[in-house]
Amino acid sequence: MSADAAADRRFMQAAIALSERGRGLSTPNPNVGCLIVRDGVIAGRGWTQKGGRPHAEAQALEEARDRAEGATAYVTLEPCFHLSPRGPRCADLMARAGVRRAVIALRDPDPRTDGQGADYLRARGVDVEMGLMAEQAAAAMRGFVLRQTLGRPAVTLKLGLSLDGCIALADGSSRWITGEAARAHAHLERARHDAILVGGGTLRADAPRLDVRLPGLEDRSPRRLLLTRHAAPDGWERIARPDDIATLSHVDHLMVEGGAETAAAFLRADLVDRLLLYRAPILIGAGRAGIAGIGLTDLAAAHGRWRLADDRRLGEDRLEVYERVRSA
Amino acid sequence: MSADAAADRRFMQAAIALSERGRGLSTPNPNVGCLIVRDGVIAGRGWTQKGGRPHAEAQALEEARDRAEGATAYVTLEPCFHLSPRGPRCADLMARAGVRRAVIALRDPDPRTDGQGADYLRARGVDVEMGLMAEQAAAAMRGFVLRQTLGRPAVTLKLGLSLDGCIALADGSSRWITGEAARAHAHLERARHDAILVGGGTLRADAPRLDVRLPGLEDRSPRRLLLTRHAAPDGWERIARPDDIATLSHVDHLMVEGGAETAAAFLRADLVDRLLLYRAPILIGAGRAGIAGIGLTDLAAAHGRWRLADDRRLGEDRLEVYERVRSA
Ligand SMILES: NC(=O)c1ccc[n+]([C@@H]2O[C@H](COP(=O)([O-])OP(=O)(O)OC[C@H]3O[C@@H](n4cnc5c(N)ncnc54)[C@H](OP(=O)(O)O)[C@@H]3O)[C@@H](O)[C@H]2O)c1
Ligand SMILES: NC(=O)c1ccc[n+]([C@@H]2O[C@H](COP(=O)([O-])OP(=O)(O)OC[C@H]3O[C@@H](n4cnc5c(N)ncnc54)[C@H](OP(=O)(O)O)[C@@H]3O)[C@@H](O)[C@H]2O)c1
Repeated sequence: MSADAAADRRFMQAAIALSERGRGLSTPNPNVGCLIVRDGVIAGRGWTQKGGRPHAEAQALEEARDRAEGATAYVTLEPCFHLSPRGPRCADLMARAGVRRAVIALRDPDPRTDGQGADYLRARGVDVEMGLMAEQAAAAMRGFVLRQTLGRPAVTLKLGLSLDGCIALADGSSRWITGEAARAHAHLERARHDAILVGGGTLRADAPRLDVRLPGLEDRSPRRLLLTRHAAPDGWERIARPDDIATLSHVDHLMVEGGAETAAAFLRADLVDRLLLYRAPILIGAGRAGIAGIGLTDLAAAHGRWRLADDRRLGEDRLEVYERVRSA
Repeated sequence: MSADAAADRRFMQAAIALSERGRGLSTPNPNVGCLIVRDGVIAGRGWTQKGGRPHAEAQALEEARDRAEGATAYVTLEPCFHLSPRGPRCADLMARAGVRRAVIALRDPDPRTDGQGADYLRARGVDVEMGLMAEQAAAAMRGFVLRQTLGRPAVTLKLGLSLDGCIALADGSSRWITGEAARAHAHLERARHDAILVGGGTLRADAPRLDVRLPGLEDRSPRRLLLTRHAAPDGWERIARPDDIATLSHVDHLMVEGGAETAAAFLRADLVDRLLLYRAPILIGAGRAGIAGIGLTDLAAAHGRWRLADDRRLGEDRLEVYERVRSA
């Protein structure tokens, strides 16, 4: 790899990291990240703000001011081209600011842009490269991408498990399986989702608050959804069946926090894209299993569906992140 | 750490690695490792051979011949001092060979030696240091140490699990949960144990061979034990209850390979020292749990018992090794 290509990757990696800051906040807009770099120095950084505006590019250009002239813009999604009453078109902003080169990770699948942002930049004399680290950028904007491709939010299933896969003792007690570091991490993950869902059984057993109890992030507590065949109590939105998540507006990233029947219902419908398994170094033995029946009749069919994406220690516990493998 | 101290640790580490070669083979003697080093060069290597003789020291001295003169011996267990019809006393062998310095990891808890080997060496003018990396050496000779301290073999519980802790589908099918690399690793672990045990249920369901099917290791297939309330069929030794493993002779390292009831019986009796969890990246949901009831009534009591000792990828699967934490 040439030094320039390595630098491009490094800056794009940083832009993707910025885009993660908007996850769980930016709906209805995708959580984009943008970096303006002139002569190898970062002149501006931006990510889609709460509620979707300003866009990442607008924010980064604002910070860069006249240092955007002749600079390279790294942006995780093709700059928008469609007119909106909510703000300017980013492709236009970039061209006007004098950006000389635009490195774009993911082409915007939204038909209102879909290549037109890049074309517009090219027509205005900007060098455009599209596709660098597209996969990583798509992973960071997973909810937006799935909305476009599958018409539903990205779903993370979170479980706190013992080594033998239990989420509670036989009598239902589940406080505590995992330790403080794992619970804090789970709260951070909550903040990065637009909504959290549990099943009626969990609501009745645990009456969970599902808020983000981390200093400075209290205002990022997501919407609370309840999977139930009955009416939902105050403060909860009802989801009558897993497929109905497709109808939710302003939810790109949804976290399902159990219990076992709810986890199984989402898995059966193949609606889970990511598993967050917080595993405590304990054995329970004959406890409550984390996942109820998912209709598996043949072990071979269980294989090839999940790929380890991350794995780390959290105090005494471990976090394993698996992603659903979907052939294109 | 001085350069000399670092070299001592490096050589002792190598001696411990050698000792691991005798695990599952060396009973009734402990699986000791020994290195003879002169002027920084390894002159001899030894580990306790099949059936316990020759001892590690005898083998290493034999290889070193006159290069043992003035050398340092690294040995994972205090050299034996007691007379035996089966072979010479290692403390005597070492002194006669002209070893100038002996670095010993673990003092021999066997009352027939227990410090006398070291004293004898000192009396013969050898510099003796005892205690270097004693914990690691004890872990490699875990079975011998537990025989001395708890009067029973070291027990490893091996389970092949899904992410949600199942060892089989609800209908009992368990072929295959883990992949080839994990199964090969489990076979290697078999070779490092003196005996393997399963419960009557597993014998009836799977009729497992429990042999070592790895090229060159076929002759290391361990003895087969069956936990059952009935008579054991041909080729199997009966264990009537978990505690009876204390009466087994020539078994220092025992591997328990399930099923769920057997695992629970050993755990309930607090007879498990090490967990080998081979975990496949699959979800089963409402399958057979890996561990039946262990009498846990309070989650707090489950904590603090297991410590992660190792963890690695094996093909698509992962191996997690946990060790029982026992306060002294
Ligand atoms: N360790 C952890 O990570 C963790 C996390 C969460 C929960 N838990 C434990 O899990 C246990 C509760 O689990 P659970 O399996 O009993 O209950 P659950 O999954 O939380 O809830 C089951 C309920 O969800 C609704 N539901 C399920 N499938 C549905 C579908 N397809 N369509 C519509 N509604 C559906 C129904 O609600 P209605 O009955 O209201 O109609 C059903 O009764 C508790 O012991 C809790 O402590 C542990
Ligand atoms: N994935 C894996 O790693 C793995 C490994 C092994 C087995 N498995 C699966 O596990 C299932 C079998 O498990 P399981 O729980 O049904 O059976 P199990 O634990 O293999 O055997 C239960 C039997 O063990 C004997 N036993 C248990 N506790 C005892 C005690 N305290 N004293 C004396 N005898 C005792 C009894 O044998 P008697 O009835 O003969 O008296 C009892 O019926 C099978 O589906 C098998 O495929 C999976």
